[in-house]
Amino acid sequence: MKMKLYCFGESGNAYKVALALALTDTPWQPVFVDFFNGETRQAAFRTLNPMGEVPVLDTGTRILTQSGVILTEIAAMTGKLGGSGPAQQAEILRWLFWDNHKLSTQIGTCRFLSNFLPPEKRPEGVIPFLQGRLKAAYAVLDAHLSGRDWIVGDGPSIADLSCCGYLYYPEPFGFTRADWPHIDRWLDRIAALPGWKRPYALMPGNPSDRA
Amino acid sequence: MKMKLYCFGESGNAYKVALALALTDTPWQPVFVDFFNGETRQAAFRTLNPMGEVPVLDTGTRILTQSGVILTEIAAMTGKLGGSGPAQQAEILRWLFWDNHKLSTQIGTCRFLSNFLPPEKRPEGVIPFLQGRLKAAYAVLDAHLSGRDWIVGDGPSIADLSCCGYLYYPEPFGFTRADWPHIDRWLDRIAALPGWKRPYALMPGNPSDRA
Repeated sequence: MKMKLYCFGESGNAYKVALALALTDTPWQPVFVDFFNGETRQAAFRTLNPMGEVPVLDTGTRILTQSGVILTEIAAMTGKLGGSGPAQQAEILRWLFWDNHKLSTQIGTCRFLSNFLPPEKRPEGVIPFLQGRLKAAYAVLDAHLSGRDWIVGDGPSIADLSCCGYLYYPEPFGFTRADWPHIDRWLDRIAALPGWKRPYALMPGNPSDRA
Repeated sequence: MKMKLYCFGESGNAYKVALALALTDTPWQPVFVDFFNGETRQAAFRTLNPMGEVPVLDTGTRILTQSGVILTEIAAMTGKLGGSGPAQQAEILRWLFWDNHKLSTQIGTCRFLSNFLPPEKRPEGVIPFLQGRLKAAYAVLDAHLSGRDWIVGDGPSIADLSCCGYLYYPEPFGFTRADWPHIDRWLDRIAALPGWKRPYALMPGNPSDRA
């Protein structure tokens, strides 16, 4: 049976999971969630996930939510992308938390405000504030990648997939790859992995659907 | 040997860890980090933690960072506050990620801007925006606690300690306990646990030091 991933193309948090499924050759199918028409606020979705968010992964036996948890479970189920040994696993978990705390959360909001809200609805001052905070986060990641190919250990892991989740999207939110050369080359390395696809090629739904 | 927790009183993320150490009877001592004079941006601190954040826990054999990781390790080391069995552990991890993604990150910023920046330096519009996002997060937590005493299972866990980290502070940031009755009673339950102390009683440094 294929796993079901509740997702939509614009969600970088869902993309992290879709990438992990694709790169581990796990059979899966997307279930489109109509976020932009309010589906995640409706009762049926809240029953599936009271936190009101994608991604949600239905493994057939369990309903999993929060990308950090789902990525950890995919690594455990497949024996891939999870690092080797307890020290690497702890280091992977550290970067998953950092991403949730400092990177993806802020990008998700900044990207939404910058691209998916009409200009007259954008709250004054919030986008530049978030971009300032993000600059500090990009600097931490770029410095970490300056001496290594992958975030943890000698190969790709779910730490890479978590941190890259929002960085391949074409819509502008203040991140320019050329400004961060080590991040830039790391994104090329991830994109060269067998099975890698861009977000809108991997999940249903994209901005042109609403154009 | 006592574990060393690099921390300062105003950090709710450090408070989560200090609480976990206190509630598990783990011998520890605080190491004051002078955040408000820029210590976390200095080279010596960045060598300790390139992410430039407290908390940092020196266990004697390992340097741990990210509150979610440290809490998980304290539960593993002490056999306390970690839930029982894989299903509860996964559910605890889910709430740790949710807290990092939706609750503590936003409160930390909102609280800093509201209380520790001079009014003329506060970026226009950001505080009300963050308060709006936080209201949605409080609603998720309050609803979850409406039918249960603890976030996961039948007793306190590191999921409770993570989510409560910023909610006992006296400085206002838009959170009023009376508005969220289930959160309110849950905070009373945590505060009744043997060893519980308020943030400024558990860690060095508080706003009156800079008054």
